[in-house]
Amino acid sequence: MKAEKLILDGNRVAADIKETLVGKIHRLSEKGIVPCLATILVGDDPSSATYVRMKGNACKRLGIQSIRVHLPKDTSTHELIAAINQLNDDPNVHGILLQHPVPHQIDERAAFEAISINKDVDGVTTLGFAQNAFGLADFPSCTPAAIVTILDYYNIPIEGKHAVVIGRSPILGKPVSLMLLNRNATVTTCHSKTTSLEDVVRLGDIVVAAVGKPKFVQGDWIKPGAIVVDAGYNDGNIGDVDYDACITNASAITPVPAGVGPVTIATLLKHTVKAAEKLTS
Amino acid sequence: MKAEKLILDGNRVAADIKETLVGKIHRLSEKGIVPCLATILVGDDPSSATYVRMKGNACKRLGIQSIRVHLPKDTSTHELIAAINQLNDDPNVHGILLQHPVPHQIDERAAFEAISINKDVDGVTTLGFAQNAFGLADFPSCTPAAIVTILDYYNIPIEGKHAVVIGRSPILGKPVSLMLLNRNATVTTCHSKTTSLEDVVRLGDIVVAAVGKPKFVQGDWIKPGAIVVDAGYNDGNIGDVDYDACITNASAITPVPAGVGPVTIATLLKHTVKAAEKLTS
Repeated sequence: MKAEKLILDGNRVAADIKETLVGKIHRLSEKGIVPCLATILVGDDPSSATYVRMKGNACKRLGIQSIRVHLPKDTSTHELIAAINQLNDDPNVHGILLQHPVPHQIDERAAFEAISINKDVDGVTTLGFAQNAFGLADFPSCTPAAIVTILDYYNIPIEGKHAVVIGRSPILGKPVSLMLLNRNATVTTCHSKTTSLEDVVRLGDIVVAAVGKPKFVQGDWIKPGAIVVDAGYNDGNIGDVDYDACITNASAITPVPAGVGPVTIATLLKHTVKAAEKLTS
Repeated sequence: MKAEKLILDGNRVAADIKETLVGKIHRLSEKGIVPCLATILVGDDPSSATYVRMKGNACKRLGIQSIRVHLPKDTSTHELIAAINQLNDDPNVHGILLQHPVPHQIDERAAFEAISINKDVDGVTTLGFAQNAFGLADFPSCTPAAIVTILDYYNIPIEGKHAVVIGRSPILGKPVSLMLLNRNATVTTCHSKTTSLEDVVRLGDIVVAAVGKPKFVQGDWIKPGAIVVDAGYNDGNIGDVDYDACITNASAITPVPAGVGPVTIATLLKHTVKAAEKLTS
């Protein structure tokens, strides 16, 4: 007999988050404030354009204003920072999201750093990262925050569990490792230089895939009963986890699509509303 | 036959670091600059007083000026920050070290944050922490940096190894985990809520004890051939590692005293000199 599998439904979690925002947005509107997220897209990468459009549409449906700044693919770091500074200075803009990756001629770190900490709703600045590492952030990076929110929503315990995070990027692998550590998980962070990756992943009570390679995590890497969270989102709506193979051993798993993705977007909206609220408090 | 054990001699590493500083300090003096470290001690904790005195003496021997600010144990956060700001504004002070722990009435995080990033030679600010997390720091926290320096000095490979860090403090466990991760180790961070700690420690090719409990790490927790780094420094010159027990399985080990401690101090001096150099470049 096959054990019951818990599918961690991101759409359900996202709906729940958005539900809590309706009242907040209404109360802000009574003060004449419309929360506003500015997204910046540099160049013409079709996936990035899709993500930006999805974020804009999600704002619209909820009554959050969205400004889309689209810069040509040969934009310089200097020009991008000038655009960011204009949004920093705009009192009607509450959150700024720079869609990454940016074209190679741009110093991405310098661009991220230009975002005002008060508007850094995706936690991409060094200061935002460190506040999150110390458990002090208003706006932890959205995908890491979404992962923790999904686990909490489904009452999956984190404390004392061994979490294995595959990936160490500044906006995903590292911050989610630190957030799970702050929630009292024992955390192992793996990456491309990890020896015997499959053995390390097999240690995980909770496995977070954040590696950016389609169907990278194999079924026999999953310890029986483990929770599998797929933070990957590759072209063609394919995650970092081989879902059909991993579901065999997993006790719970996020699908792609409709797993981490929608909760990430809902978290971005939540942070934008919070940024607007902070201005009025 | 007992295998040869490599004792990782911190005094030797520290002497090597100080050797490289002599010429730098001389060149600074030709420009009329004397590197200066300000240490702040709040209260009368005898261990803290000892550490501050050791740091001051180490400065003196090398021709680095040291200023010791001693504040009463009932100092408020506000008063401490005022003292820090005075040092921030003093052009003759290049590095600021706030000896911790501080008395309980003080908001330690707020005090750390008050240190100017240019003078944050122990990497205690959130910004310094995050720069280190991204591999961009001028001044990573001294003890974590000392640990990596010791491994490098003895040509102990880090890449691809499984490092287990016991402890998750903002100035030790977390930054050393991130530094080892940036050096391509697979890193597991453990703490008081870790389940079956001994089994997790046994995964480590490199074990870093940063837990603040005397002789906490037991001999049978060490995988045969592992490298053991003891970053603990408890009253009575006792480390976090049961040295006599752990040396049996370890292939290399840092003693206490004369392990990580002197390298931490040498690193502090190195950062102070670097801070002075940056002012003139």
